[in-house]
Amino acid sequence: MRERLSRAARLAADAGWDALLITPGPDLRYLVGYDAVPLERLTCLVVPASGDPVLVAPLLERPAAAASPVGGAGIDIRTWGETDDPYRLVADLLPGSSRVGVDDHMWAVKALSLRAAMPAAEQYAAGAVLSHMRMRKSPDEVAALMGAGRAIDEVHAAVPSLLRPGRTEREVGRDIAALILETGHVTADFVIVASGPNGASPHHEVSDRVLQVGDAIVVDIGGTMPDGYCSDETRTYALGDPGEDYLRAYAVLQQAQRAAWEAVRPGVTCESIDAVARDRLEADGLGQLFIHRTGHGIGLETHEEPYIVSGNTLPLEEGMTFSVEPGFYAEGRWGARIEDIVACGGDGPVLLNHRPRDLVVVD
Amino acid sequence: MRERLSRAARLAADAGWDALLITPGPDLRYLVGYDAVPLERLTCLVVPASGDPVLVAPLLERPAAAASPVGGAGIDIRTWGETDDPYRLVADLLPGSSRVGVDDHMWAVKALSLRAAMPAAEQYAAGAVLSHMRMRKSPDEVAALMGAGRAIDEVHAAVPSLLRPGRTEREVGRDIAALILETGHVTADFVIVASGPNGASPHHEVSDRVLQVGDAIVVDIGGTMPDGYCSDETRTYALGDPGEDYLRAYAVLQQAQRAAWEAVRPGVTCESIDAVARDRLEADGLGQLFIHRTGHGIGLETHEEPYIVSGNTLPLEEGMTFSVEPGFYAEGRWGARIEDIVACGGDGPVLLNHRPRDLVVVD
Repeated sequence: MRERLSRAARLAADAGWDALLITPGPDLRYLVGYDAVPLERLTCLVVPASGDPVLVAPLLERPAAAASPVGGAGIDIRTWGETDDPYRLVADLLPGSSRVGVDDHMWAVKALSLRAAMPAAEQYAAGAVLSHMRMRKSPDEVAALMGAGRAIDEVHAAVPSLLRPGRTEREVGRDIAALILETGHVTADFVIVASGPNGASPHHEVSDRVLQVGDAIVVDIGGTMPDGYCSDETRTYALGDPGEDYLRAYAVLQQAQRAAWEAVRPGVTCESIDAVARDRLEADGLGQLFIHRTGHGIGLETHEEPYIVSGNTLPLEEGMTFSVEPGFYAEGRWGARIEDIVACGGDGPVLLNHRPRDLVVVD
Repeated sequence: MRERLSRAARLAADAGWDALLITPGPDLRYLVGYDAVPLERLTCLVVPASGDPVLVAPLLERPAAAASPVGGAGIDIRTWGETDDPYRLVADLLPGSSRVGVDDHMWAVKALSLRAAMPAAEQYAAGAVLSHMRMRKSPDEVAALMGAGRAIDEVHAAVPSLLRPGRTEREVGRDIAALILETGHVTADFVIVASGPNGASPHHEVSDRVLQVGDAIVVDIGGTMPDGYCSDETRTYALGDPGEDYLRAYAVLQQAQRAAWEAVRPGVTCESIDAVARDRLEADGLGQLFIHRTGHGIGLETHEEPYIVSGNTLPLEEGMTFSVEPGFYAEGRWGARIEDIVACGGDGPVLLNHRPRDLVVVD
């Protein structure tokens, strides 16, 4: 933790900022291991570019903060009572500041209150520093994501047994959510069961639509493990024969997804991984139906940097972890997506999901 | 929905703002019924002070947005592709704006991006408008909160059967989380099982501490119903005899909590409800141990306005709904809290929770 904190302070100094102001969420958990819930009372880790960090916390959260790694690390905890002004407390810790980095996920109402308390301090999105650190995973973090990958693989292994004509997406989704918890996740973060024409909506969740023979079914699911790291894996299933057109398109998608993750290695840019998938789909006339980027980073959040998207010229480095998930979406007809989490290894891709990528036909 | 939107626009105009900018979260759900997940891609409802609202959304979210009440209401949905700049899109909808209200829960990184795209538009916390509306519940909303209250009552009715010496807080918490879902909630939002000395931490969650004879156990639990409205209820249990000192203090707490909710009626200020509970505890020397405010509003969020806290001179109105939850916390020893959700009725309090408030002694 000390190493992460001093690295963050150094990067903040490099950016010309006087401090980082970090509220509950993944950045706080990453920096000091304190998994606090974002609530209306201000909890804020103040990381000055030089000097010791201080955790500003509501008085009633002191025991929880002290029981977290913050307590063990001896970080000073400054509490405030229900009628105190916590923004003043933060401002008083940073006299004369002219530039501060505020947590990307900080609530706007808190950022605006900090601005009012520190009118001379221009605010910048702290993600420039935090994402820089968080997207470069340590071997321990990659191992944690491997554990999450194995857990969600287990859920997908059970999915075919849940898909039967006559069941609704919602019923299947409820079973999947229970399995996500049974396989070791502490929360089921999202469950997409998108059958038939619902598959054309990439972020469909579940509905009361009844599964029918001939449906293709996109199942995109994930959760959070006790250590905070997330899983995210999509497989597409079919109830019986989805038809020739669909099978032909799916075969192209499978090639595109494989080509994209096979291209992963240090030095290759994020946008070029996107281009590999996109070019393959375009070559078969499916480019217009691939309406989203190829992937997103994953770690303490399901979606984080690096984004695998056109325009992102960031070169991959060993330890970056992200999804590779091209799909095709035809409104009113169907959809498909194949998603694996991939770590960039020293000389190529390391897959963190292992379920077969063929269309799983359930008879 | 149209009524809420036009009311919000009118209040924004009264505040001198050109528009409200609302991102996914409770404000968006309240205004247009769209229960979108906050993610990194910008979804933003633009509510101009005069003119028609527009929903700016990622292309891949269009089907989900159109399937929500937004689609049925005929609100214009403007989509953006993966390589477009959505902040520019919002800025272009509001040329010449000098003051905008941004959603209280908007991520800071988005508020800062909007500021960069609209440098002439000063930002204000939109909560001034949205909280004003949301804290005055319609009869339908009070009925929804009654439903949530009944559901969490059912869970508390089962809690005594889960408390046995030798079980851990975590085991009990897991059972409670399952019951929260079984009683009709769609999510279990928090589960506090704070036994023995852990009871002294108001926001303790669960731990591996083993329940022991003589423990007092604070159980504070809540979830979200399918309609989005939240439950939140605390009862304190004892495994066998917690001792004379504890019983004496608990009796005072019970009087304080009752006196506080009995004082609820239109025109009484929020801070005076807090004072009723606090004065009663202080009269018996327990004031120092009551380290938090008396309550918080509840609705589409577990914590929202009005806050029942010293300094809040807002007079209660019929339809305001909030918790009344005094407690006492002695570090290293024990804690206690009694919490009910109360609606301010036309001439007095309406309790939305109905479990007995006596200390429940489990033998």
